[in-house]
Amino acid sequence: MKKPLIIVTNDDGIAAPGIRALVETAQNLGEVIVVAPDKPQSGQGHAITITRPLRIHPVDIFEGIEAYECSGTPVDCVKFAKYFLLKDRKIDLCVSGINHGTNAAINILYSGTMSAAMEASLEGINSIGFSLEDYSWEADFEAARFFALKLMEHVLENGLADCKLLNVNIPKLPLEQIRGIKLCRQAECNYSEEFVQGVDPHGQKYYWLAGELQNNGAAEGTDIWALQNGYVSIVPSTHDLTSYRGLTALQGLEKIL
Amino acid sequence: MKKPLIIVTNDDGIAAPGIRALVETAQNLGEVIVVAPDKPQSGQGHAITITRPLRIHPVDIFEGIEAYECSGTPVDCVKFAKYFLLKDRKIDLCVSGINHGTNAAINILYSGTMSAAMEASLEGINSIGFSLEDYSWEADFEAARFFALKLMEHVLENGLADCKLLNVNIPKLPLEQIRGIKLCRQAECNYSEEFVQGVDPHGQKYYWLAGELQNNGAAEGTDIWALQNGYVSIVPSTHDLTSYRGLTALQGLEKIL
Repeated sequence: MKKPLIIVTNDDGIAAPGIRALVETAQNLGEVIVVAPDKPQSGQGHAITITRPLRIHPVDIFEGIEAYECSGTPVDCVKFAKYFLLKDRKIDLCVSGINHGTNAAINILYSGTMSAAMEASLEGINSIGFSLEDYSWEADFEAARFFALKLMEHVLENGLADCKLLNVNIPKLPLEQIRGIKLCRQAECNYSEEFVQGVDPHGQKYYWLAGELQNNGAAEGTDIWALQNGYVSIVPSTHDLTSYRGLTALQGLEKIL
Repeated sequence: MKKPLIIVTNDDGIAAPGIRALVETAQNLGEVIVVAPDKPQSGQGHAITITRPLRIHPVDIFEGIEAYECSGTPVDCVKFAKYFLLKDRKIDLCVSGINHGTNAAINILYSGTMSAAMEASLEGINSIGFSLEDYSWEADFEAARFFALKLMEHVLENGLADCKLLNVNIPKLPLEQIRGIKLCRQAECNYSEEFVQGVDPHGQKYYWLAGELQNNGAAEGTDIWALQNGYVSIVPSTHDLTSYRGLTALQGLEKIL
């Protein structure tokens, strides 16, 4: 049987420990090609690079694995893999991460890791974004590797029905303390932002964004709730942002002229 | 009665003709505050600036209007307006655009204009992104101004029910040829990308993203269909990316261990 073709990317940059954990895990399941940003790109969301060229170089940092660093965003990496590097090949799975820090709740909107996975899903590729609830560069990826392996294996064998995208978050717990997997909806919450003001060495004023996710009392069934209760959360996700409730409720807008 | 407080932003930059059209329109309806990028930021999606400070300066380019240019992304602009500039005030409406070029279909994912409006909606602010189906800097904004005025007026008076975000696209037609407003769902489509290769003046290879939206045969009821048939499209939109169909179909994922 032909080995499945798996592309791996992230937003923490190609040298981050999290992507290494994911590459080493994916290697057990198929042929792996890595295209990832050449520097950290957290918070890049679904940004693409259109007003300047990209620089892309092969790098030899994963033993026996074809890998490329890209000067652009995570979404650029996926487009390059799909439309240039692997133009004539079928990609069986795209995995993104393992992100240093969770992408639960509305973090999916800001996350380059999740946007890269979403971009692949737009192309009809089954895609999974993995994130660990630990921002530290020295985070322990053991439990995340375990669940990543299980999920990739399952998706390669069984697909994802009509849904093409999973947002998977792993709690910051030793593997034996994780209680299982919960299928969840995205938690409702927002950031409470602060702008730290300062004056730079040249006497110029600056403002630095420094917010915190407000997640008090997340409802049962949401991804934040699952993480708080020791479960791996999986949110089946979509790129269709239509509010179908709004579509019904706001019919009157057609008649305002 | 107190005048409503309206914030205006965009992704084409504070000096773009489109935002001027929107500011001049909003001015008829309330107190307007502008916070917009100091340079074009198309394709920035929901990106935020966290690894470096922002520079923000008051600018006097709209007669009688308080306005600020910001070195960050469209979403940064909205966060700055909400959490710094207008910290203690209630914002009644956020409008973003008028974008030079449509943000129908999946363009909503890549669009800084729509992401700015979505960011405001996350804060519970009624928000509308306006885009004109004309990429030209010299585009004729007359019809767009007309519909923007009608819609802002309506939303200020009636709200948006549970939905907080509208993606409004105006066809490239003279006002009298526009057939009306259609409430739509987001069209399914994707980009077919090309990477133009070249060699820069220093002998270094580059790749430049150059894709086109594939929108052949958009289904009736979608935003692309509405534009193709001479209507203004309105897609009520949400930041909840949960695939509720996937949530039902993929329950088996909880049992793969």
